[in-house]
Amino acid sequence: MSLVITPLMRFPMIEPGDDLSSEILSCLEDNNLPLVENDILVITQKVVSKAENRFVDLSTITPSEKAIKLGLQTEKDPRLVEVILRESNEVVRFRKGSLVVEHKLGFICASAGIDHSNISGGSKESNQSVLLLPVDPSASAKKIRDAVFSKYGKNIGVLIIDSQGRAWRNGVVGMSIGLSGIPALIDERGWKDLYGSTLEITIVGVVDELAAAASLMMGQANEGTPVVHVRGFPYKLAEGNFNDLMRSKETDLFR
Amino acid sequence: MSLVITPLMRFPMIEPGDDLSSEILSCLEDNNLPLVENDILVITQKVVSKAENRFVDLSTITPSEKAIKLGLQTEKDPRLVEVILRESNEVVRFRKGSLVVEHKLGFICASAGIDHSNISGGSKESNQSVLLLPVDPSASAKKIRDAVFSKYGKNIGVLIIDSQGRAWRNGVVGMSIGLSGIPALIDERGWKDLYGSTLEITIVGVVDELAAAASLMMGQANEGTPVVHVRGFPYKLAEGNFNDLMRSKETDLFR
Repeated sequence: MSLVITPLMRFPMIEPGDDLSSEILSCLEDNNLPLVENDILVITQKVVSKAENRFVDLSTITPSEKAIKLGLQTEKDPRLVEVILRESNEVVRFRKGSLVVEHKLGFICASAGIDHSNISGGSKESNQSVLLLPVDPSASAKKIRDAVFSKYGKNIGVLIIDSQGRAWRNGVVGMSIGLSGIPALIDERGWKDLYGSTLEITIVGVVDELAAAASLMMGQANEGTPVVHVRGFPYKLAEGNFNDLMRSKETDLFR
Repeated sequence: MSLVITPLMRFPMIEPGDDLSSEILSCLEDNNLPLVENDILVITQKVVSKAENRFVDLSTITPSEKAIKLGLQTEKDPRLVEVILRESNEVVRFRKGSLVVEHKLGFICASAGIDHSNISGGSKESNQSVLLLPVDPSASAKKIRDAVFSKYGKNIGVLIIDSQGRAWRNGVVGMSIGLSGIPALIDERGWKDLYGSTLEITIVGVVDELAAAASLMMGQANEGTPVVHVRGFPYKLAEGNFNDLMRSKETDLFR
């Protein structure tokens, strides 16, 4: 049994207000990819955010004192810093060029997941638009999953991902930011290994592994393939909880 | 174009001294998977370490003062702690149950990548054997790559992976620890996005994305599938440098 990861070609440009679910379903048909039970769709946050109109025009933002100070320290636009702070629970680290926060959604990431690339919104001259993460990515995932079930009667998993940096490694990788119908972790504690010993480190971040796999097939520069179809996920699909992935502050050695 | 990840079935148990390259080549034939140019083999470190006899019998280890103290603080066997320290450049964090180090190979990980599961070595009664990471995983990867080229005349990539934890997320995921014939990072800086803007965060950890993808198909408990075949990697294969993945201490905000 292979895992097969297929990017959907000819995905349309998404604008605020577009019905993302129906665009995905049409694109699946256009790609001649009929869904079967246990398939998974992995979707980059950017098209979800666009459809949900999570644009913010920086020219409308008045930065707070804190944002102005942090803007100087990080050499970032203080209005962008203000938006980042509004999207965050707390600042975790900062330095010139870098502002790492705990996002309201619970994960730690750079700039609250806000970036400028592949965004056409805002005035063409100033291009002051930035795009926030979806308000509730797991709810966005559920909407798409429900649309699939309602059209085809198939249970699938839906995963929303973003490219994020890592504490100690160069290079961003795809990570989960929301999910529906797919377990976040597989807990193998108590399972026996090949020699009959009980496994030690055995909680596996399977949706993050899947997020990374799917991200590989999306590329970064050309956001023409924001949706990826996955067949052959080796675990049973079941409702998962994104928050299972979030390490509690008490067990966090690195903030 | 899909990415297709296929675990090799019926992979034999590996013992110290086994010729891993020839076991892999036989198993590929047994699986009816003829290699083509640009294919990649992803291999879990455990079979590499076993073939290279990286077992250490804890009953032969005398812990240092430092290891004894750290053993008490982490509630780990002081002899295991001693072996972890010998495999490491420095201790990064510790607490009850957890010892995070910078491995000699440059990456930060728990317990220097040493674990007990899926190990049959050592006396059955005491089972005091532990298995270290390969001495030079990229050299191990190159050996396998060279064996493939010499038998089939095909250029492939070889990636050695391990399951590692993350600073802020629960669950281990597959990460690269050595490579040959495959780029570690893809640097998309300067590429234009769909709207003609220059990309910002654009260094992508492609081999770590691939490591995670392959890990998903290996499972953890049943180490029966330690080798995974990958076809359809979307970047051009070329010699890569594992150390490109390692964040320099100067830019590390989290140690």
